[in-house]
Amino acid sequence: MKVLSQNVAFGGMQGVYSHRSEACDCDMTFAVFVPPQAVSQPCPVVWYLSGLTCSHANVMEKGEYRRLAAELGLIIVCPDTSPRGDDVADEAANWQMGKGAGFYLDATQAPWARHYRMETYITQELPALIAAQFRADMNRQAIFGHSMGGHGAMTIALKNPERFRSCSAFAPIVQPSTADWSVGAFEKYLGADTAAWRAYDACALVEDGARFPEFLIDQGTADGFLENGLRPWLFEEAIKGTGIALTLRMQERYDHSYYFISTFMDDHLRWHAERLA
Amino acid sequence: MKVLSQNVAFGGMQGVYSHRSEACDCDMTFAVFVPPQAVSQPCPVVWYLSGLTCSHANVMEKGEYRRLAAELGLIIVCPDTSPRGDDVADEAANWQMGKGAGFYLDATQAPWARHYRMETYITQELPALIAAQFRADMNRQAIFGHSMGGHGAMTIALKNPERFRSCSAFAPIVQPSTADWSVGAFEKYLGADTAAWRAYDACALVEDGARFPEFLIDQGTADGFLENGLRPWLFEEAIKGTGIALTLRMQERYDHSYYFISTFMDDHLRWHAERLA
Repeated sequence: MKVLSQNVAFGGMQGVYSHRSEACDCDMTFAVFVPPQAVSQPCPVVWYLSGLTCSHANVMEKGEYRRLAAELGLIIVCPDTSPRGDDVADEAANWQMGKGAGFYLDATQAPWARHYRMETYITQELPALIAAQFRADMNRQAIFGHSMGGHGAMTIALKNPERFRSCSAFAPIVQPSTADWSVGAFEKYLGADTAAWRAYDACALVEDGARFPEFLIDQGTADGFLENGLRPWLFEEAIKGTGIALTLRMQERYDHSYYFISTFMDDHLRWHAERLA
Repeated sequence: MKVLSQNVAFGGMQGVYSHRSEACDCDMTFAVFVPPQAVSQPCPVVWYLSGLTCSHANVMEKGEYRRLAAELGLIIVCPDTSPRGDDVADEAANWQMGKGAGFYLDATQAPWARHYRMETYITQELPALIAAQFRADMNRQAIFGHSMGGHGAMTIALKNPERFRSCSAFAPIVQPSTADWSVGAFEKYLGADTAAWRAYDACALVEDGARFPEFLIDQGTADGFLENGLRPWLFEEAIKGTGIALTLRMQERYDHSYYFISTFMDDHLRWHAERLA
């Protein structure tokens, strides 16, 4: 693991690191905030998965998570959204496919399958690195994310309920197998057989029996992607009768930006901290 | 005034605006955060002046001021650091001169004098626009800034003590007339006669009789610019016997970045809010 930068903030340390990823067969970059409490004890880990076009840097710069994470004693891990590098397949003109658009899945189709193995990276390889390199209590983990990263957080939580104590999302893509901005990517990454898509779709996972106790979702009503891309009401429908609890908060006048995310960041960190205690 | 963007955040509105500046003879861009309290009453105005290479955007994205400004009911105005545009004189390879390096002064030397009139812009033209366009209580103003913007805030406060109730700075350049990164710019903007530089130097202003009741300065001990550029001890010396109060806090391990600024942003906003009440 290579240190790219480290800056003291709120008594803790905001770092950016890179390492050779076996899963993605390329160098990967990620950010970790370590709170001051980690000096004396292992701290719980909260994973934040970012949205389309983002890297680790967007939430690190604009997410405003450090103040409260330092107070609550949370390690915040912010991975990249896709493999990177000159030899990684891409569609440079398409922001919904390739670099910056990994959709937290393991691609099965050429040429994507070689590098685009973000599910394995996020759920296996990076956790092992975090456990080895940071003072992390891996028995206490939570996960959240934004948009494509909200999709990632929810699907990963549904598939790993024993690992995560809590899950939340800002404006998540709850049904990517039918959403405008993900259908094209799913077909290229996973092939034309839509049965394979269901493992990467929160609504389909619930229909197929996956369970996670409860979710918190914040969604802005002025979000331009609400009607065609996000549609949290589909998840509200999907969980009916399943016992899954959902706190869905429609936030009047808020859009899809980090101005929205930073506004409700504290609520989400407190949600996770309560369940990690 | 043209609206470039508006995003709801923390119940208020973060906007970015542009207008034709007479003072700078070019279009200027600035950011304003309006807190929710402005719906029902005029709110006090806190000016944040940014450092070298920055625009209005750096603190808007990384400064983490909105949460507490919304709670305290403060309007936050973030101007640009220099005139902009294709016909504005510049030294593109020199980050300490020209665009992004206006030093909050009115240049007197060619070719800079035509556009580089940031003192007039910040103290006359932009306040008039803010008063006209926002629900601002211009009888309650405060000013702060970072690095070159800390220099700007301190010199402007010292020259306009009747206007500002409070002044603070993150890692300010307290004596630009002798600091490595400003001497070259001062000579080009103001000419070789250093007598003219004293009006833009916090230490020299105090020596020449300017007064402001008190300052708060935060300075990171791991700031790479501390010894040659910032040197807050020179201001500590300059105010001896003047009655000016200084709270100088040396912050262990902090650097010059927005990780440092955002960590202490709350303290500065509370400092100003107490004096604006």
